[in-house]
Amino acid sequence: MSDFQVRNPNYIERVRESFARQSFMTTIGAELLDVLPGGVDIRLPYHDGLCQQHGYFHGGVIGTLADNAGGYAAFSLMAPEDTLLTVEYKMNIVAPGDGDALITRGRVLRPGRTLTVCRAEVFAVKEGREKLCATALCTLMTLEGQEDTPDRHQPKTG
Amino acid sequence: MSDFQVRNPNYIERVRESFARQSFMTTIGAELLDVLPGGVDIRLPYHDGLCQQHGYFHGGVIGTLADNAGGYAAFSLMAPEDTLLTVEYKMNIVAPGDGDALITRGRVLRPGRTLTVCRAEVFAVKEGREKLCATALCTLMTLEGQEDTPDRHQPKTG
Amino acid sequence: MSDFQVRNPNYIERVRESFARQSFMTTIGAELLDVLPGGVDIRLPYHDGLCQQHGYFHGGVIGTLADNAGGYAAFSLMAPEDTLLTVEYKMNIVAPGDGDALITRGRVLRPGRTLTVCRAEVFAVKEGREKLCATALCTLMTLEGQEDTPDRHQPKTG
Amino acid sequence: MSDFQVRNPNYIERVRESFARQSFMTTIGAELLDVLPGGVDIRLPYHDGLCQQHGYFHGGVIGTLADNAGGYAAFSLMAPEDTLLTVEYKMNIVAPGDGDALITRGRVLRPGRTLTVCRAEVFAVKEGREKLCATALCTLMTLEGQEDTPDRHQPKTG
Repeated sequence: MSDFQVRNPNYIERVRESFARQSFMTTIGAELLDVLPGGVDIRLPYHDGLCQQHGYFHGGVIGTLADNAGGYAAFSLMAPEDTLLTVEYKMNIVAPGDGDALITRGRVLRPGRTLTVCRAEVFAVKEGREKLCATALCTLMTLEGQEDTPDRHQPKTG
Repeated sequence: MSDFQVRNPNYIERVRESFARQSFMTTIGAELLDVLPGGVDIRLPYHDGLCQQHGYFHGGVIGTLADNAGGYAAFSLMAPEDTLLTVEYKMNIVAPGDGDALITRGRVLRPGRTLTVCRAEVFAVKEGREKLCATALCTLMTLEGQEDTPDRHQPKTG
Repeated sequence: MSDFQVRNPNYIERVRESFARQSFMTTIGAELLDVLPGGVDIRLPYHDGLCQQHGYFHGGVIGTLADNAGGYAAFSLMAPEDTLLTVEYKMNIVAPGDGDALITRGRVLRPGRTLTVCRAEVFAVKEGREKLCATALCTLMTLEGQEDTPDRHQPKTG
Repeated sequence: MSDFQVRNPNYIERVRESFARQSFMTTIGAELLDVLPGGVDIRLPYHDGLCQQHGYFHGGVIGTLADNAGGYAAFSLMAPEDTLLTVEYKMNIVAPGDGDALITRGRVLRPGRTLTVCRAEVFAVKEGREKLCATALCTLMTLEGQEDTPDRHQPKTG
């Protein structure tokens, strides 16, 4: 991934700061691991509140991680004055979310001025071994000149 | 949807009972509304723990609802002795998840012996008006002769 | 679809003229039927050169029609000075392409300044009856200020 | 890919023979290159009949190759008595189909008894250099005990 151009020298901080503001990541207990130029890794430990009806990680949790890992992989290449939004994603679940944790790796496949395409792979970690659980393709759109700050949104619950 | 064949006369109870066992639905606060032959509606009120960095509903939450509405739409047509799993889904987010609640409608497009294809649409409800937020296509696979019960899974957290 | 704003009063001509320049449509024998604000229908009669190994319409033919119907549905809403390109599409094939012809209906779901999302449905027509063969979601991107003419491309085979 | 189990010792012949029966491959001029356990490469030289309105390879051609490369990658792992069909695919086009030829590489990501998930990447070759043009995820379903022969289909054109 060394051929991706980083437009923001503080991209690691910016990704971490934005991730920290996503309350849903706190709700599910996801942790941002590595942040690379064009890539991020996210880890989510298993707990009882993340399950589908059979006690495995819920497909929505798996999709959430894939979407977010793809999104922040793209975000790592954004200019300081830009932000982005998810246009769409598609995910194949190839094995149950059966493990002590999920590790998700999002990687930029093709950066673009307006659109960035990423791949995200979700692995279920069980007894120290990783097994592919899901693979996704994500499309993100750059919003030029829009800060990634919360103040363009009025509180909804207050 | 009146042309879909219901194989389980107790399909409404079965869908509700399975949904109630998904701990992730409790975690996010989702509520199962109508259950029809080949269709379900799910509602999720906004709260502070479901957000992305700008205070809107997180894309993962939107995807979770789409996946689940598609899944239970298909599940409503299953025979009593069968269950199903999500093969894949693809979702376009067409507007921010900006509202007091999300309403998701999952509908079977094409039922099949092995595979069922569903559409799910997610609407953001704001001041009583619904606005399309996301549209998804989901593929579900029937697992014949497998109960939809939690006992084939060992507790993971001990 | 009456709520879609047409930016080009000559949109029908423009769609037909662009379609006519797609040599691949001539190669397969596809015909543009109706052109509406935000929608087009395409018809393709069966012939021996369009098959997969079992003699049905090839999946690539089905995908070609879905992609093109979605694309021209979006194109019908473009301003005269803009063109567009396909960002991505996803298609579920729900029945074999078994018929005397395929009819494809592309419809805009959500128009946007930069991105437009469309649905396309492909029907196999057999003995006068239509049967759903495939359903697709397509994302198109507007290219502002770029003519939809062939002259930005150098001949490749000459 | 050495960890994929080949169930048919004559898989290369079987893939080549099936590909040769797809009349649409002949129509567009596609050529099957390598056949590996869980992978195939397909090449398509540019010609005037394969274009969209700007003279590039049509998106439907790109999708056709992706679908077919994914399909035959999966088919290479099938037992002699089984065949398969495409359930769905999703493709991102990341650059125009601008080149002297397209090379498509289909690879199995996850084989399964009923479903196989593949990745396909399409490259535009120009002046000897490959550039990524599209990336796809494909889902294929095994049809057990069904020969991959044309005789289960009645001639359609009379």
